[in-house]
Amino acid sequence: MQKILAIDAGGTSTRAVIATADGHGVGFGTAGSGNPISAGLDGALDSFATAAERAQASYGQGPQEFSCILIAMAGKSAGVSLDLISARLSGLGARGPVETDSDLLAMFCSGTASPNGYALVAGTGAVAARVRNRRLERVCGGTGWLLGDDGSGFWIGQRVARAVVAALDGLGPQTALTGLLLQSLALECGPENAGEHIEGRPEVLLRLLETLYALRPVELSRFAPLAFQAGDDAVARAIVSDAASALVDTLATVRTTDAAGPLVLGGSVLNDGLLGADSPVAATLRGQLHADDAVCVQDGAVGATVLALLRVGTEVDPRLFERIGRDVARLRGNAEATTTGATR
Amino acid sequence: MQKILAIDAGGTSTRAVIATADGHGVGFGTAGSGNPISAGLDGALDSFATAAERAQASYGQGPQEFSCILIAMAGKSAGVSLDLISARLSGLGARGPVETDSDLLAMFCSGTASPNGYALVAGTGAVAARVRNRRLERVCGGTGWLLGDDGSGFWIGQRVARAVVAALDGLGPQTALTGLLLQSLALECGPENAGEHIEGRPEVLLRLLETLYALRPVELSRFAPLAFQAGDDAVARAIVSDAASALVDTLATVRTTDAAGPLVLGGSVLNDGLLGADSPVAATLRGQLHADDAVCVQDGAVGATVLALLRVGTEVDPRLFERIGRDVARLRGNAEATTTGATR
Repeated sequence: MQKILAIDAGGTSTRAVIATADGHGVGFGTAGSGNPISAGLDGALDSFATAAERAQASYGQGPQEFSCILIAMAGKSAGVSLDLISARLSGLGARGPVETDSDLLAMFCSGTASPNGYALVAGTGAVAARVRNRRLERVCGGTGWLLGDDGSGFWIGQRVARAVVAALDGLGPQTALTGLLLQSLALECGPENAGEHIEGRPEVLLRLLETLYALRPVELSRFAPLAFQAGDDAVARAIVSDAASALVDTLATVRTTDAAGPLVLGGSVLNDGLLGADSPVAATLRGQLHADDAVCVQDGAVGATVLALLRVGTEVDPRLFERIGRDVARLRGNAEATTTGATR
Repeated sequence: MQKILAIDAGGTSTRAVIATADGHGVGFGTAGSGNPISAGLDGALDSFATAAERAQASYGQGPQEFSCILIAMAGKSAGVSLDLISARLSGLGARGPVETDSDLLAMFCSGTASPNGYALVAGTGAVAARVRNRRLERVCGGTGWLLGDDGSGFWIGQRVARAVVAALDGLGPQTALTGLLLQSLALECGPENAGEHIEGRPEVLLRLLETLYALRPVELSRFAPLAFQAGDDAVARAIVSDAASALVDTLATVRTTDAAGPLVLGGSVLNDGLLGADSPVAATLRGQLHADDAVCVQDGAVGATVLALLRVGTEVDPRLFERIGRDVARLRGNAEATTTGATR
């Protein structure tokens, strides 16, 4: 039986799936960042190889010949040579023709068997796509933390940090985010130094600035969850609501009346991983869109598998799609149960 | 006659003034960035030395003993050792006790002989101060491009770039800023490739993103002047108006009813250097504040001289202040006329 290897390469982690050409998932593995920009080319190749190796190990077979090796990644290839990927994977016994496709498309195909529809992904960045015949017809957003991506994890995290700086500087309203941010950075002031001021500003503001400017700017995205934890704080609520509105605008830009299909939501801003439910941004967004039926997906692992199967001529109907989803969920559960030290 | 050396160290350029203790300006020189963070410690020391050397040359005297060497700089000392500065300057024959003070205070003291009042400076950053007895009593803003400084040159330049990215991405309204930004980066599309699209987006958007992300983020401030050049474009007008409002808010935070005094405006966002007049932001801000009598200053050269004279016991009354201003303006004019290759 022919087999395919699908690799879903993300900025935080990478997933590899082995499936038979008739659509049975048989192997699964994970590794760290597979994004050549954030992890470097070598780091990304390492992640592809590690995830593939772990998928092969979970399959319990030796070296494999695949009919298709599909890598779903940002910007499709992002300048990564297919020969390099091929050489790296065949070095560990995973041989076959390597192709790439968009991670955004893989995310869409993780949520639906329909070849048409819309995807909205908000992780560190924020991007929307209109999909027709399982191809990206129109993309909006994804222009990065400095120049766009309103509503993304970075955008929310920066709002949180700016709101706290403004509050401490006397420029903005007091907010529960101040305590949450200072606590997360271990910068809370004890009663002994809470009153210290320099040029009329609290000393803790200067320490906060020093701490935050020592980070890479994009790391501000790690403070996004604080906006979800601040209860009914007015500043935090405004950030969540503005993020949802910005994402609605991004999605509206790719919508057309002549293209129907389901909406697939993805990314850490829309998934509440801890609670296994909608994040507050996703809940607000569903309300604004009247999109109760939008599907929330964890990542592009299922979709990358679908895209690889299509390339070897397998027809992916709803029944097959459901089975791949169940297989990947089961294999993922096994991997999480048995692998310690692997990142998701 | 005792003499003082005053150095006004800025992020873009540095100015040195030599004055007699009775308040006659006798020497002036300029150099590049004197900010230890943007220029590095060695770069800043080089700028102090170069500006001082040029001031000594313009004075036409040899090595000098100064009663006070005062450096006005951001964050007062920003971790620069006074011994290092002293050693560097005495190496070229400028000897004397070195002290530092705030560049923001020097900016205020460039605009008025009054010991009390307010300063609002918007260059790459944005900061406001309440001054009492020529000391900073309350400071607001200046928290940097990533975490604050609404209304600054960076803030305006980033708005310009984001507005153009959004317009090209279909997310925001069309704006005259697009043509101005593409032109300034030599990215205009000719008629032969104006229609090229990738995933439904104009190809020029992808080239613009590549070009802008190759800059250091803070360099976006260089696009701020485009907002002043876009005529009655609605997007540009909103950016200018929002910048003025943000600066008004920053100033309001340091205002108190029990402290009167003049308002001094400084920085490239408020000075229209080319036209020798208020920038559009300054004009809008004056209207919002009803502050027709606010004084606009070019830099802190005069104020650093005032602060140095005060340290050697000279009383700086309005008459003396006026004379220092005239002397520095004359010496500056001579320096600009005779020195080629020196940065302002």
